[in-house]
Amino acid sequence: MITQKEIILPSMRKGFHQIDKFISEAIGALPETGIMNIFVKHTSAALMINENADPDVQTDLNTLLERIAPENDPQYSHTLEGPDYMPAHFKTAVLGSSLTIPITNYRLNTGTWQGIYFCEFRRNGGNRKLVITIYH
Amino acid sequence: MITQKEIILPSMRKGFHQIDKFISEAIGALPETGIMNIFVKHTSAALMINENADPDVQTDLNTLLERIAPENDPQYSHTLEGPDYMPAHFKTAVLGSSLTIPITNYRLNTGTWQGIYFCEFRRNGGNRKLVITIYH
Amino acid sequence: MITQKEIILPSMRKGFHQIDKFISEAIGALPETGIMNIFVKHTSAALMINENADPDVQTDLNTLLERIAPENDPQYSHTLEGPDYMPAHFKTAVLGSSLTIPITNYRLNTGTWQGIYFCEFRRNGGNRKLVITIYH
Repeated sequence: MITQKEIILPSMRKGFHQIDKFISEAIGALPETGIMNIFVKHTSAALMINENADPDVQTDLNTLLERIAPENDPQYSHTLEGPDYMPAHFKTAVLGSSLTIPITNYRLNTGTWQGIYFCEFRRNGGNRKLVITIYH
Repeated sequence: MITQKEIILPSMRKGFHQIDKFISEAIGALPETGIMNIFVKHTSAALMINENADPDVQTDLNTLLERIAPENDPQYSHTLEGPDYMPAHFKTAVLGSSLTIPITNYRLNTGTWQGIYFCEFRRNGGNRKLVITIYH
Repeated sequence: MITQKEIILPSMRKGFHQIDKFISEAIGALPETGIMNIFVKHTSAALMINENADPDVQTDLNTLLERIAPENDPQYSHTLEGPDYMPAHFKTAVLGSSLTIPITNYRLNTGTWQGIYFCEFRRNGGNRKLVITIYH
């Protein structure tokens, strides 16, 4: 059985934003056993599972990500849409556009330290659409 | 309910190739609601969702990807199978071997600017096999 | 139909470990057609599909991965938990916390050269939990 819901994330600043609560509130009760897929419908924002405790981790993840996708790189061909545009697209390719997470005993079966992050890579990304699909 | 099809991509040159049309023609009608998983059965080719409009974006993604997976790196141990071999395997690890995409109203529910790309990382990759699985 | 099992990997040294056999023994008989999702419940270990033949490939993948996530980087904010901590978290973000693999004719439908790797990024990661979900 499949259930599906499209949700809109409010505009968020560039950075990593934990969305576990946002998703659980948007979706409501979960099945006893299943899988949740979260898909972001944009090419300059991604989804990531990472540590949910110390914000320094997010700072350092950002440092490493910016190093492999720098702004204003002289080799870029596509520069019309701002310095954060190409880096955002590479970061999205590397982190990915969807997550698949098991559901066990009516809950997302993530580990103690795992948080679900929405990764906004643009300075003015605006509202963002996610599609949540649950199969059980 | 699960349906599944193995398809063969014709030999493509090294680079990013949009395959949305190829997949929709191979698969035919989609269910009203569901999920499509696309899996590539090779270790030197990957799948990616990224911008479908300006080819400069693909050029720049390639520039950044080649920088973290350079050819002829003096530190490589595995060099027997050509200069594109190890870079291809690292790029595949980073971009990933499968995509999971929601199906809504009988269509893949990707965003306006999202395209599905087959990423051929070898100069002579030859034919490539994909497995498409749809559950609904 | 969904079946699910949580399994515990014994403590493994830092590196890439092929786990195809471990998983097939833990799971037993597979359905004729379906999908298997493997999810790792930790933020400093990942899953990867890559070449299963020459161990040099794993050595070189590690070289490239360590280069984008170096130990003891002077820019790190989070250093309390050891030099392998932040690199492990970045590598996990890049390689990802889950794999989705098609099942065809009662077997995982991976290519000839594809192996499933558990990637332990810490020197003392200890036991690690995986959740295997099969839908068919």
